[in-house]
This record gives sequence, C-alpha cells and structure tokens, in this order.
Amino acid sequence: MNQDYIKADNWSIIEEGFDAERVKSSESLFSIGNGAMGQRANFEEHYTGETFQGSYIAGVYYPDKTKVGWWKNGYPEYFAKVLNAPNWIGIDIEINGEAFDLHACTQVSHFRRELNMKEGWYHRSFEATLKNGTQIRADIRRFLCMDLDESGIIRYEITPINKDATIAYKPYVDAGVSNEDANWEEKFWEPLEVKHSQNSAFVTARTFKTHFIATTFMHNTIWLNGQNATLNPENVESNNEKIQFTYSVNVAQNTTSSIEKIGGYTVSMNHENTLAAAEKVIATASQLGYEKLLEQQKNAWAKIWEMSDITIEGDVKAQQGIRFNIFQLNQTYSGKDSRLNIGPKGFTGEKYGGSTYWDTEAYCIPFYMATKDQQVARNLLTYRYNQLDKAIENAQNNLGFKNGAALYPMVTMNGEECHNEWEITHEEIHRNGAIAFAIYNYHRYTGDYSYIPEKGLEVLIGIARFWHQRASFSKQKNQYVILGVTGPNEYENNVNNNWYTNYIAKWCIDYAAEQIQKVAAEYAADHKRIIEKVKLSDAEIAEWKKVSGNMYFPYSQELGIYLQQDGFLDKDLVPVKDLDKSQRPINQKWSWDRVLRSPYIKQADTLQGFYFFEDHFTKEQLEKHFDFYEPFTVHESSLSPCVHSIQAAVLDKMDMAYTFYLRTSRLDLDDYNKEVEEGCHITSMAGTWMSIVEGFGGMRIKNDTLHFTPRIPKQWDGYSFKINFRHQILKVSVHQNETKFVLEGDHEIKVVVNGKEVLVEPNNLVTV
Amino acid sequence: MNQDYIKADNWSIIEEGFDAERVKSSESLFSIGNGAMGQRANFEEHYTGETFQGSYIAGVYYPDKTKVGWWKNGYPEYFAKVLNAPNWIGIDIEINGEAFDLHACTQVSHFRRELNMKEGWYHRSFEATLKNGTQIRADIRRFLCMDLDESGIIRYEITPINKDATIAYKPYVDAGVSNEDANWEEKFWEPLEVKHSQNSAFVTARTFKTHFIATTFMHNTIWLNGQNATLNPENVESNNEKIQFTYSVNVAQNTTSSIEKIGGYTVSMNHENTLAAAEKVIATASQLGYEKLLEQQKNAWAKIWEMSDITIEGDVKAQQGIRFNIFQLNQTYSGKDSRLNIGPKGFTGEKYGGSTYWDTEAYCIPFYMATKDQQVARNLLTYRYNQLDKAIENAQNNLGFKNGAALYPMVTMNGEECHNEWEITHEEIHRNGAIAFAIYNYHRYTGDYSYIPEKGLEVLIGIARFWHQRASFSKQKNQYVILGVTGPNEYENNVNNNWYTNYIAKWCIDYAAEQIQKVAAEYAADHKRIIEKVKLSDAEIAEWKKVSGNMYFPYSQELGIYLQQDGFLDKDLVPVKDLDKSQRPINQKWSWDRVLRSPYIKQADTLQGFYFFEDHFTKEQLEKHFDFYEPFTVHESSLSPCVHSIQAAVLDKMDMAYTFYLRTSRLDLDDYNKEVEEGCHITSMAGTWMSIVEGFGGMRIKNDTLHFTPRIPKQWDGYSFKINFRHQILKVSVHQNETKFVLEGDHEIKVVVNGKEVLVEPNNLVTV
Repeated sequence: MNQDYIKADNWSIIEEGFDAERVKSSESLFSIGNGAMGQRANFEEHYTGETFQGSYIAGVYYPDKTKVGWWKNGYPEYFAKVLNAPNWIGIDIEINGEAFDLHACTQVSHFRRELNMKEGWYHRSFEATLKNGTQIRADIRRFLCMDLDESGIIRYEITPINKDATIAYKPYVDAGVSNEDANWEEKFWEPLEVKHSQNSAFVTARTFKTHFIATTFMHNTIWLNGQNATLNPENVESNNEKIQFTYSVNVAQNTTSSIEKIGGYTVSMNHENTLAAAEKVIATASQLGYEKLLEQQKNAWAKIWEMSDITIEGDVKAQQGIRFNIFQLNQTYSGKDSRLNIGPKGFTGEKYGGSTYWDTEAYCIPFYMATKDQQVARNLLTYRYNQLDKAIENAQNNLGFKNGAALYPMVTMNGEECHNEWEITHEEIHRNGAIAFAIYNYHRYTGDYSYIPEKGLEVLIGIARFWHQRASFSKQKNQYVILGVTGPNEYENNVNNNWYTNYIAKWCIDYAAEQIQKVAAEYAADHKRIIEKVKLSDAEIAEWKKVSGNMYFPYSQELGIYLQQDGFLDKDLVPVKDLDKSQRPINQKWSWDRVLRSPYIKQADTLQGFYFFEDHFTKEQLEKHFDFYEPFTVHESSLSPCVHSIQAAVLDKMDMAYTFYLRTSRLDLDDYNKEVEEGCHITSMAGTWMSIVEGFGGMRIKNDTLHFTPRIPKQWDGYSFKINFRHQILKVSVHQNETKFVLEGDHEIKVVVNGKEVLVEPNNLVTV
Repeated sequence: MNQDYIKADNWSIIEEGFDAERVKSSESLFSIGNGAMGQRANFEEHYTGETFQGSYIAGVYYPDKTKVGWWKNGYPEYFAKVLNAPNWIGIDIEINGEAFDLHACTQVSHFRRELNMKEGWYHRSFEATLKNGTQIRADIRRFLCMDLDESGIIRYEITPINKDATIAYKPYVDAGVSNEDANWEEKFWEPLEVKHSQNSAFVTARTFKTHFIATTFMHNTIWLNGQNATLNPENVESNNEKIQFTYSVNVAQNTTSSIEKIGGYTVSMNHENTLAAAEKVIATASQLGYEKLLEQQKNAWAKIWEMSDITIEGDVKAQQGIRFNIFQLNQTYSGKDSRLNIGPKGFTGEKYGGSTYWDTEAYCIPFYMATKDQQVARNLLTYRYNQLDKAIENAQNNLGFKNGAALYPMVTMNGEECHNEWEITHEEIHRNGAIAFAIYNYHRYTGDYSYIPEKGLEVLIGIARFWHQRASFSKQKNQYVILGVTGPNEYENNVNNNWYTNYIAKWCIDYAAEQIQKVAAEYAADHKRIIEKVKLSDAEIAEWKKVSGNMYFPYSQELGIYLQQDGFLDKDLVPVKDLDKSQRPINQKWSWDRVLRSPYIKQADTLQGFYFFEDHFTKEQLEKHFDFYEPFTVHESSLSPCVHSIQAAVLDKMDMAYTFYLRTSRLDLDDYNKEVEEGCHITSMAGTWMSIVEGFGGMRIKNDTLHFTPRIPKQWDGYSFKINFRHQILKVSVHQNETKFVLEGDHEIKVVVNGKEVLVEPNNLVTV
C-alpha cells in the first residue's frame, strides 16, 4: 500500500491533519529551493517529535573519509557529502511562558500544509492548545526568493484565541548543525564569527577541509495587529556558533501578532566578504518587504510555468504529479551557474552524497534544453568541460590510463571521484558515454554547433581515448572486448561485454572522429588549437577506429537479440511476474550475490541503448528487445520507469506506458519505494517530463526538424506541453482525436506529425 | 632487495646491532607464543622509538562495526578483530634517577637478539650508556611456558659497568591498551578491578561487547648478586586499569641485579573466577621458579622437535627457514583446545582480524596431522562441526538458502562471518569445499573413520545442500552452472563457472552421498540419528546427484585445458615475465578493475584443484595446466608458492620447485613482501612444510599406504623429516642418491617408494 495522504489538487501539494508519523515524509515533500539553496520543510519552532533537519547550500560540500577495501587500490580518498547548512529558519516560540512545541501540545487541529507550486511558497497553519491551556492559531508562510536568491523570508503569525497571551518570538541562526549520516557525530562547520546589529544577526562559519565560508544571516521585524511594532530585541544570547534574539509582545485574545524573518546565506564561492554581502542582501530584501518579495516570487514562478508547464486534463493526480516534478526540478537547478549541477536529492535530503551523476546527461539535459534558454544546457555541458582535467587525472593517476584519456567520475562535486565501491567507481564506466551523448544531443536539439569547437571536442577526444585504451583484444573472438564493467543495470557487476557499454564506446569513438573531421573542415583555428593542445595525430585516430570498427557485441542468434552481457543467457531466467512478492524489492530482501546472479534488471540497460540510439534500430528490433528485457526489469531505480514508459508508448503499449508514467510521476508523492523521508528523487523527475514529451508526445529531433507521434492514455482527456525549440516556443496540445500546435515566435517552422509535414506559422493554431 | 639482517643459524633467529628502523620487523620475527597467548617482541622497558605493541590471547576478540556498501544487503554486522591484550611484560627501569629508554641512550652496543627455537626462549642483551653517563649491561630472557600455558616469565638482569647505580625496577600490568588499527582510538577493554598483594598484582578487565574477562597478573622477585633480595615493593601506584610496583636496589659496579617477573592471563573462557585462577597460576609458577620453568620449557620444545623437526644438510638458510616455520606453527596452535584455530598472523600482529580462514583446512591440517597426535587435527575438524549451526544460520538468514544448507564464513572467530566485502564474503564460496576436503583428508591420512559418523557427516550434508542449491541450471548449456563466484584467485571477482569451485562442488556432493551410504551400511545408529536430525530423504540426495552428475566445467578444446572461469580466454594473455617490474606487485600498483581484467593469478586456483585432486588427473594433464597457468601467476599471496613448489617437484622441475620453496620458507625472515612489520604469515608456514614433505619427499597416502617419490634440490646434501602415521613415527632421510626410512613403533609397515613396495620394520634402517 502506497502512501496516500497528499490531497489531489491541480496546483498545490496539500496535507491536512497532524500526524507525527508523517512529519519526516512531509518534510521531504514540502521542501523548497531556489537553485542556490534549499531546505526541508522543517518546522521553524522547536519540535521534539521525529524530524530530519536539513538546509543545503548549492555547491557546498564536505569530503568525508573513505574507509573501504582490505587491500584494493584506486579508491578515492574521500566521498563528498552534501552538508547540512547552518539553520536560518529557526524561531523558538514561548507563549505565556511555555515553550511552544507541536509535539507537546494537548491538542492540534486544523493542521494544514500547502506547497503552492504555482506561486512558489510553502504555507502551514494550525490551531493548538498548549499545556498551559493557551489556545492559538498559527499561520506560517515561507519562501526562498527566486530572484534575490541568497535570501528567503518567513512570516510567522500567531493569534491567541482563548485568552490574551504574552508571546516571545526567539529567532536564531545556528551553525552548530551536523549531518544525519555523520559518523561519530562529527561536525563539519567551524564557527568563525558571530555578529549582530539591531534586528540583524550574522554567523560566519567555514567548512572543515573544503574551507567554504558562509555567512548565515537573519533580519527580523515584529508586527502586532497589522502594524510594525518597531521593536529591537530585548535579549540577545549568543555563543561562538549561534545567536538568538528574543522579542516579547503582549497579544490580546483574537489579535494577531507576527514575526517576519528574512534569512539566507552568502557564500565565499560568490563573495570575497560574505558578511558585507549579507548586509547588502538584508538591506535589499528588507527594503522590498514581505509583500513585494511575495509579489516578485509569484512573478518569477509565473514565468517559469509559462514556459515549462504541462497540463493534463481529466486526471488530477497525474496533473499534480507532473507539476510536482517540474516544480522540484526548477527549485533544484536554475541553470545560472555552471559550477552547479543537479543532485539526485536536490535540496530535499543528504542521500547519495555528491551532486553530479550521469543522471544529468542521460535524464536531465533534455528537460532543461526544452524548457529553458539553451544557455542552461550549455552550462551543464560546460560543467563537465571545466572538469576535464580532473577526469584525465583520474584516469591517469588512479586507473593507469595514459595519453589524455579521461574517465569522468561516477559521482562528483568538484570533478574528483567520490564514490567508493570498486564495482561502481572503477567499472560503471558507461557514464563516460552519456557525457559524450549529451554533447551530441545538445547539438541535435539546439542546432548550436559552436559548443563543439569551443569546448566539446576536447571532452570527446578524452573520452574516445579512454574507450580505445579500455577495450582489449580477444584472440579467441578476434574482436575487441570490454571486460569487467558494470552497466546501467547495477544489479550486475564486473561483467564482460555489457552490450550498452560496448555500443556507446564504439559510438563515442566514431562520433569523436567525425567531429574532429568536421571541426577541421569548418573551424580550422579551433582544430589547430585543440590538436596541438591534446597532441592528437591521425595515426592515433586510426588506432581508435580499429577498435570501434571491430567491437564485439554479444548476440543470441537463436533469440535474435543483443545480450545484456556475455553470461546473461546462463542465468535462471524466471520473469519478475513469477517472483514471489515477498522477495521484492530484491535489493532490500536479497544478499548482493543473489541479486547479481539473478536475471533481474534494476533499470533500463540494453533498452537504455535503444533509447539513446532509437534511430539505429527498427521498431521490430526495439519490440523484440523490449519484450525480452522488460519482463526481467524490477524498476528498483527511480530512473527506470520513464525510459520504459517512452518505449512502451512508441510500441503502442499504452496501458504499460501509462502505468510506468504514474509510477515515475508520483514516485515521491505516493512514496512507492517507502523512502521519501530521506528526500525526493529529483533527477528522475526529468525522466517524468520525458515520458510525456518524448513518450506520449513522441517528440524527436531528426535532421533539425521536430517530429511528433502524439498518443494519449485513455484515462486522459488531453494534455499539453511547451518546448523552446531554437528560440521559439511551440505549444503542443494533444486530445483524444487531435493535436494542436501554436507557435510563439517570429518565423514559421515545419514539424513532422505522424510522418507528415505540417507548417506551423507564428501565433496561428494548427490542428492535426 | 630483500631484508637480510637475520644471521644464518641452524637453530636460532639472531639479530646483531641496534637499528631503530628494524625494531618493528624484529618485533614480528622474534614473537613468542604458546598456543594460548603470544606477543610481539616488544621491549619490556619503555621505548620512545617506533614500535608496534602487541600481546594477544587466543580466542579473545572484539566485533568491530562494519560500515560498507551504499545499498547492498547481506554484509555481516561486524568484523572481528584480534585484540591487543593487556600488557604484562612491561618493566619501566630507572637508573640513577633516569628513565631508561634505548631510544634515548647516548650509546648502544653489543645489541643482540636471539630467538632460540630449539629451547623456546627469546633473549636480548646489550650495553648502553644513559644520558647521565651510567653505563650498563643488560641481559633479558623471556618465554611463554608451553606447559603452564597461562604464564610466562621474564628475567631482566642489569649490571652497571662504569659506576655504582641505584636501579629502580618498575614492573606493571596495564589494561589501558588499544589496537594499532582502532578507529578513532577506540578502547576495547573495560577495566573491572585492580588488586595487589605483596609482590603480586592483578588487573581484571572485560572486553566490550564480547564480554571476555581476563585477569592479567604479575609476580615479581628481585635478585641481587645471585641472591633473592626478598623485597616487597616500596611503592605501588595504580589507577582503574593499571598497577605498577617500584623496587629500588643499590647495585655496585660490575654487580648484577635482576627482576624476575612471572605474568600472564587467566580468561573467562577457562575459569569462572579469573582472579582466583591467576593466584593459583602464580603460586604454581613461583614455586617452580625461573630455572625449573626454563627446564620444563626446554623439555617441552625438545618433545615438539623430536616429532616435527625437518633437517636440511648443506643449506643453513633453508634449514633456518623451515625451522622458523615449524617453530611459529607450534607457537600459534597447540591443538589442545577445539575452540581455537590458526590465525593468519598468529600472535605476531593484528592484520586479517579473524582467526580462521580456509587456510586451516587447505594448508594447515596436513602439518598438524603429520606432526601431532591425530586428536589435534580432529580438534580442528571439530571446530567447524561446532560452528555448523552458525554456518546454516548464515546461509539461511543472510543469504537466502534453506533446508539446512550451510555456508561456512570466509573469516571467523566464533562461527559468524566477519569479512565484509561482498565479492569475498558472499562469493568466495569455495571455502566450503576445503572444509569438506579436510574431512576426507583426515580420514585418508589417519584411517580414523569414526569422525565421520560422529560429526563429519552432518557437516558434509550441510555443505552438499549448499552446493546443490547454489548451482543453477543453464538452459543454454543444458548443464548446471555456478554463477557469480570468486575462486582461490581473488584477483577475479564475480566470475561464472570458476573451474575449481565447480569441481570441488561436484566432489563435495558425491563425497557426501558416498559417506551417507557408508554410514548407513556400517554405522546404522549414527545414520538414523543424523538423518532424523537433518531430515534428509533419498529423494533429496537424488536431486543433489542431478547437479553433481551434470555439472559444467569450462574447457578449451583447442588448448586441452580446463579454464579458470568462463571468460578467461577473452583476457589479454600477457605472461608475468613480460610485465614490467615497475607494475609489481599488481595489488599495490593497479586499481582493482585493472587487476580484475588482467590474466594475473594471485595464488593457485585451477592448480589448487590439481593439488587436492591430483589422483583424478594424469601427470600429462597436470603438466599442461601447470605450464598454462603458472606463467600468469604473480604469487602475491603467501599461500601461492608452496602449491606451485609441490607441483613443480612432481613435474621434475626442481629448479622451480627450489625457488618456490625458498620463497615460501623465508618469506618473513627475508621479508619478500616488505610487510613483516605487520606480523608473520603463519598459515602459509604449513605450506612450507608441505613443500618439503609432499613436494620434495613426494609423500602421498593411497589406499591406506604411504607413498614417497623422493627428490632433492641440487643445492642440498640431504634432508629428513618425521611423520606420525597412524600412531607410529616414520623418519625419512633423503640424500642425493638414497632415501632412508626408520620406523619408531611396534609393527612393520609397507611403504611405496618410487612405485615399489618396501617393508619397513620397527627400528630397522631401510635404505632405498
């Protein structure tokens, strides 16, 4: 039974009723972020029930000790951790002398949370009776400014409803935080300075080892009965890492008082003097004030939705699901800063440590490409370009490659590998392929070739060199093989000739060689600069091509399918449907060896290749492989259902496509994997978007032209999405019997719908 | 360049000259033990130079936290650690008011260590000049009593040689010790009680978690000029975990004073009241006194050597090497206690954590079988029998097996698995085979079948059930396969159809089925008891036989050899001799993925099967496989050279056999692997013994008869060994042109020498 307490609503995530058991799940689901920072939906006031506290600053991490392996070499020295950042949201409350704590109240009623995705704010309200008998109503709204992205604001209103009350608001900032997953309660922040001035306070702290400096700040205003009470704190308590103000107000029964707290972080990544920067942010934000900031917030989100909204008619849960996904993606990554990337948990939890996985290239780039200016996708590509030197160092110093071969890390914050299982770190090398594929995909979608001569070609060369060296020649097969890898299906480790890996390896070499030729022909100066820099000869390219031209691909003549890896057919091939439910999920029920020797597939593997390279195969081939592999797929990765949904749609298996779609879009809202407490699955949310646009909508780019093969689940009346295609916006609306196109732009485009060309003129509805 | 500071000597290990750089290596090499406890050759007096302190009590361990794997299941909750035990050897010394410390002396000369293997004591002597100018001569002997095995004794003599001296002897016992490899300087001992009475002191402490209680004790006597000074301590200092006495004596120039310190441990494994037991041990030992104890020690070792000595003529280094191996084996395991086993580092270091590996069955049992009463080998078998329930629990609860299948742990202290790498813990399952093989080997050697109906059969059934369930049917091959294993060559992980594993799996099933029949026929009552206990039906046995009768063995028709695993021939087969020396040892130079996809073999794998099952194959087959696999073998396990030495001898490759022999026998003395600081390689020392007896001597048991095919390296004039064969002692002396046999016993035996029967009568020299 999945979780089902979230109310269905087109635009909001809503919880009603207070249940301490749900607090950690809701803290994840109601998380807010603005690309630069984010936080779980922790209560502002002190709470003694179970909670998972988390505030995060984009790009700020800690390198924790790696201690694995008895004798094995090549592990990274550390694994990066997302750090729980200092707390700026905290507001302790005392009411008639009693510390207010929802967990200790004699009664809580009308408890309601709303995450308003349309306008970008989080709201909580309730009535509560304290042990001392005082009954209050509270109304709390919080948002992280999308524009002024170093700040957020909280308005915390309290109305005593059964008697007058003395209310003490005690806002604080606190750098004395630790991580949930810290070993031995290690601290990661070293406090440097605590400062305050009138209603503002600042705690400056530095991370150990990485030496990021962050000033965490607050600025408070107290309101009574709608009027600014112009109070200064009556008490200031501080130690070397925390500062707390006390403001007391006497509030008559049924009169409303409130605190407005502006807070946030200024970080040494962006400022030389973080304290001075914090003072400026406070000045700007407090001058604007709560109402104006809220106005700006609504406008900012309106712009985002204008471009990225997907509507679904006739299925509120599906609508809520897709908007939740789009909302979270926009909260996590704004695309402004090429030093940042998309963490698998975004700002909703600590799990998975680093920020950057191959998820970015394989699943996220299409979403950002289609719903943002192309500069955003270019920034994501540039992130990898900027880390190319580290990828080469990794291959050379840790793994014994030479001559500029690059292996990008499986998980990273700063370009260094920070995952520490050999079967992943050293062997899940297909990630290099996705990084090259994203360059191809960017060019295919945007038509912007300039990235390749400027930056991309160096990345492609480093990757091609890696594959050339990583393959070895099998005398027995008289072909090149790639031994000892882990494919996208992490439920097989150290296998030989994973088809997906071999296929993308060959593709990478061929694509790199083609781009070298093209750059030589069309961008001679860039070609010269790059060839000299990387010292590449034609003879070396010829060596690469020997490998790509004679790569081995495991194939079953009898079944007519490519094999996931050499040994796949020796497995005991019992399909998932015949597996007892008590054994699922296998990664929680089975020891690792049992998982490995089973035929069960965690996420698309061979089918991932058919997804990336759909145009290399016939529909019959796709169907044969889908029908063979899907029955063994347990979809125990959040990244699995979306690819299967897209392929099921292509194969007109619409019931399957819809089932997979629901699973991906409401994975967290309905908590399919019983782990939403730990945070949301951010990167797979981009896969949800793909399920609609590429799956149901059938969008493809072929020869610089948009193609659509619209399909619609029978459960829906209609759906629509917009895409930014080469600086014009195309809105696509699909209903059961027709598809409509509207173009916002200034020049007509040709699109291909179900194989037929259609001309779409600016601002002119076209119905097909 | 290997280490070469150990003086060649037939009976002793000797170091001359003081070099602080060598202290840690010598601490390992001069370690002493008596089966119940042991210790590194740490100095008694305080030493401020680099040192690795270690005292160990057999069977006392600590379960340390396991923290590995991001999502993988089935890891053990802890890994066991050998614990550094409380220190009883410590004697701080003050001379004319200055704390004596070899590292702080202005001069040290005539420094000499001797480990007298013949008599079982460790001696150290030197002259030293303190900063205060006092010059002394010291003479220190220490041994751990083989008979009274809870005690040891130290005589520490000091003679001032340039002036009179006031000497304070400050002996102590201290439970405030920690492990070298402890995380975060964790303590493992909780002090319970400190007590003293006259010249005796006792510290009782309990290990955390495992709750072993040990009383560490001392009893001191001060001597001056050869007379017992009948002193009581003039000062007693103690805290909750340490107690220290001070005895001061005024010693005239060139007069000798000494302290005799009796010490040791009494442990809750053996005593209800460890303190009372310690008082008894002191009473017994002090009544005997130093000289008598030393006398006993010499006698005890004389008996051991009488039975287990191997002589080598014409090669002192080889002689010293083999005696060092035999000496260490006898120090590590006496065979008295079936709760104990043979740790890979014995009492010489902490590494490898647990005590029991498959080394015991594969390498150690033959040595103990041939040089001890057969009860000793039986105790080693019983150790596993006593842990059968835990092996079944492990298979069922952690690994998903059912119906009494047993998987013995890779590493254990108490029967629970305590190794934590999935590729070893879950996949190096061939260990189960060695445990069954040892039962067969015990019967083959001793002729004592009674162990099988009494205990062994249950173990064999649990193991057969494991293999039956662990194999799976490959439709493609139409045979049973064993997927996802690590063979003896740990440089391949998660491979399919490791030949050695498949072969021993089949053998285990067939052997178990035969023994069930035999026990049914000959031990009907035992058969009934066991079958009822384990609920075994004929139908189940028939299912086992389906698997063993149709097992797949990877084979190359072209090469005429069995393949180490399915994918072996796809590797880049460059022999070790063509590998650049800078790349060795590969486990230190290469990342793990590179090791895995290389063809390099850590230790005998396919050849291990040819060693165990030599009689299943022709000599031509052995030669073909040896010639194929040896060139890829890097021998980076201490267990590797011995098997290769034996097989090289069988194949008349005597130069190779001799090279491998030297490498195994002087591995630690010459520090081939540059790691002797961490401790000695105890279990491989039994392999050294096998290299001589089974390799050069060619000893085999066939049909209850001893066979020999004596060979001799050209570097030697002769060698001899004794074996205990079915309660009679046969001494075998091999010279370049003849082999002599002498039997100590009361009935003649038939032996087969080079294929010919020879009758050996009691006490009658036979020359062949």
